[in-house]
Amino acid sequence: MKRARVADLLRREPGGVVEIDGWVKTARHAKEMSFIEVSDGSSVAGIQVIAEPDLANFEDEVRALRTGAALRVEGELIESPGKGQRVEVAARRVEQVGGVGDDYPLQKKRHTFEFLREIAHLRMRTNSLGAVMRVRNAASQAIHRFFQGEGFVELHTPVITASDAEGAGEMFRVTTLEGASADPDAAAADFFGRPAYLTVSGQLEAEIGAAALSRVYTFGPTFRAENSNTSRHLAEFWMIEPEVAFLDLDGNVALAEAFLKSVCGDLLEHCRDDMEFFALRVEKSAIDTLEHVIREPFERMTYTEAVKILEASGRDFEFPVQWGADLQSEHERFLTEEHVGRPLVVTDYPRGIKPFYMYLNDDERTVRAMDVLVPRVGEIIGGSQREHRLPILETRLQEQGLPESEYWWYLDLRRHGSVPHAGFGLGFERLVQFATGMANIRDVIPFPRTPGNAEF
Amino acid sequence: MKRARVADLLRREPGGVVEIDGWVKTARHAKEMSFIEVSDGSSVAGIQVIAEPDLANFEDEVRALRTGAALRVEGELIESPGKGQRVEVAARRVEQVGGVGDDYPLQKKRHTFEFLREIAHLRMRTNSLGAVMRVRNAASQAIHRFFQGEGFVELHTPVITASDAEGAGEMFRVTTLEGASADPDAAAADFFGRPAYLTVSGQLEAEIGAAALSRVYTFGPTFRAENSNTSRHLAEFWMIEPEVAFLDLDGNVALAEAFLKSVCGDLLEHCRDDMEFFALRVEKSAIDTLEHVIREPFERMTYTEAVKILEASGRDFEFPVQWGADLQSEHERFLTEEHVGRPLVVTDYPRGIKPFYMYLNDDERTVRAMDVLVPRVGEIIGGSQREHRLPILETRLQEQGLPESEYWWYLDLRRHGSVPHAGFGLGFERLVQFATGMANIRDVIPFPRTPGNAEF
Repeated sequence: MKRARVADLLRREPGGVVEIDGWVKTARHAKEMSFIEVSDGSSVAGIQVIAEPDLANFEDEVRALRTGAALRVEGELIESPGKGQRVEVAARRVEQVGGVGDDYPLQKKRHTFEFLREIAHLRMRTNSLGAVMRVRNAASQAIHRFFQGEGFVELHTPVITASDAEGAGEMFRVTTLEGASADPDAAAADFFGRPAYLTVSGQLEAEIGAAALSRVYTFGPTFRAENSNTSRHLAEFWMIEPEVAFLDLDGNVALAEAFLKSVCGDLLEHCRDDMEFFALRVEKSAIDTLEHVIREPFERMTYTEAVKILEASGRDFEFPVQWGADLQSEHERFLTEEHVGRPLVVTDYPRGIKPFYMYLNDDERTVRAMDVLVPRVGEIIGGSQREHRLPILETRLQEQGLPESEYWWYLDLRRHGSVPHAGFGLGFERLVQFATGMANIRDVIPFPRTPGNAEF
Repeated sequence: MKRARVADLLRREPGGVVEIDGWVKTARHAKEMSFIEVSDGSSVAGIQVIAEPDLANFEDEVRALRTGAALRVEGELIESPGKGQRVEVAARRVEQVGGVGDDYPLQKKRHTFEFLREIAHLRMRTNSLGAVMRVRNAASQAIHRFFQGEGFVELHTPVITASDAEGAGEMFRVTTLEGASADPDAAAADFFGRPAYLTVSGQLEAEIGAAALSRVYTFGPTFRAENSNTSRHLAEFWMIEPEVAFLDLDGNVALAEAFLKSVCGDLLEHCRDDMEFFALRVEKSAIDTLEHVIREPFERMTYTEAVKILEASGRDFEFPVQWGADLQSEHERFLTEEHVGRPLVVTDYPRGIKPFYMYLNDDERTVRAMDVLVPRVGEIIGGSQREHRLPILETRLQEQGLPESEYWWYLDLRRHGSVPHAGFGLGFERLVQFATGMANIRDVIPFPRTPGNAEF
């Protein structure tokens, strides 16, 4: 007999003998009967197991079962008289595989997310973190499904890099030397013969891929050595970066919209139970928000229009609104939540606040950047059409004080078969936060890395 | 008109007007006609475009087109009189989007893989590296498909870690300090407040996942700071690590076999053209080998049996065969290629040559390890049932001189709801090497990281 997943059993019709491997979520011991809710992590709901005194180990073992104990159950799948569940298991055999210590920290009561972070080796056993991990998994698959369906090739860009994708951003250094230095002369003796870092973005390498395979995407870990202790920052996070040859800004906007709609739709289709859990326990609007993204056409405006709207809003923002300054989170949320009331794509930002690789518009004041803003989260996607004209790219590098020698291969792409191309980046954890409504980004990744924390 | 992918056009019936964006693979200019093979990286074959003098830019632009130039073509999809192709495009319009410099290094002649590594920003435009990237993509998707179909949850285990999964293995250090030290006191001032490293395996964290979600797998980059300059080693490579609760060694062997068969089957189904290219140009046995893996049941023997067979073989091996020493590549290849002539799983290795976390057999001399060996490559998968019994695990840690304090959470998993569990690791690049027959591992990853090399 092959053991069954709880998620599958809960959908089955009553009948037949089943075997379950799992852990006790709750155990209630009545006089002549024990009710044991068993979970195997395959769904937010466990399955109820009924044990009666005819079991040989009823008094000794079954009645001593506690939350967290591992067990193997064999029994009949019967119709459940209880509400909220169609089936339950009338046990023929209950075997405790592994007990729990008296100090088992996950008791029945609810725990704060802060506390659960300290026991990240156990927290995935809770309803909320288990649901997060399943939604995370479904989102990951939804992303692959979208891009593969559109003929993209997944490209594994390197984690260890000698270049800095943005000409900015604090980076982690990678070394095998004791007393290691970032000085190029000293680093000549290091593993890679030069200073090496953890990547902040796979974009530049993805552009290499797009210039050969037309449509590529990366999906991998990226790093920021910023000393940010906020609910929206991680030192290590996963990022998705599609890059497409022969694509302009308009095409890029359309791609981002189709992508987000597709992923949100997949989550509602494949994770309904978990999403209902989030709507019930974490963020009331969780499901509505996804449905809203799927249904509503995204609004679009330029940065210049956005600034005018903000200036005319009469709002007293903490940060001043001024053409040439970057939009702050409060501005973004006003625009998407209050002004347009749906997802919004802001395009054509001032050249001075955007990286060198963005396509310069004819006005020479703005570049073909785009940010996708969504209610409750603000910016979820940032992208651009890339500068593919060699002379302008060289000027932009100089402008930002970046040495051409470090970008020789990036410039080479503009020398040989250069084409208009575009792409964007999506922080995977931001997406999971958006979908689940989880307030802190540390609770949507299995083992968060933040300043002072690399435990587990 | 939506532009079409070349891969899709090649499968279409003649008829209709199409638009193609791509690059010139070859251009042959006859007297009254130009033959241009255009590729967009979607397939190993390009599509032939026929241009005639009625095009306005025929003399000036079309006849000057060279390998590597980017172009946009509009034309009629017609039946091809040539052999080896069903359709071709009779051009109505050919527009050069981006030219190539005189120093474009990818001319028509074949280049060595060594040379191509120096121009990794261009090499994906070649037939062989393009095919590698498509097979790599297909293998990645095949892996997700298998595990998702079996109810696994993909778990993103951390890249930055404070622990060492094997109690061995050279690791890269991660730091934000100038003159950084691995000394714990000095590292207290570093970003994570302690020495931090790049992970060599996600296994220990995957065990956390399995103890909550039952079936998980990782798929992410891992790192080895070994000074190995071989055709089989990378400093950065991708690894797949499934981990399953309530699974013993037998189940683990069965999982590995089902997994490999499924992935090989997917590659033949989804990458037929690319696989035929490899069989023709790189490794004659490429397709046969995959078919062999799919068809043949895997053989199984213990390490002790394997040693007896090797001793009785009469072979003059470079490395001596002796119970207690690890099997060398030459031994593994003899066993799988010559002795059994198909994939082989060797189990139950001496405890002394395997890590602390492997389940100790009753004989106390061996542990429940398994290596999956395949013809041409040798070991492709390594795994084990894990030690889930707390007292024995503690003894094993002491034996290997590993401090319990660093493994507090790993031991905790054995205190609370501990269950038999098992898993394995597969080096993704080894798999791609195996499938394609590519001789050097640096040619199956977009941007290889090796001692002295972190370019691109």
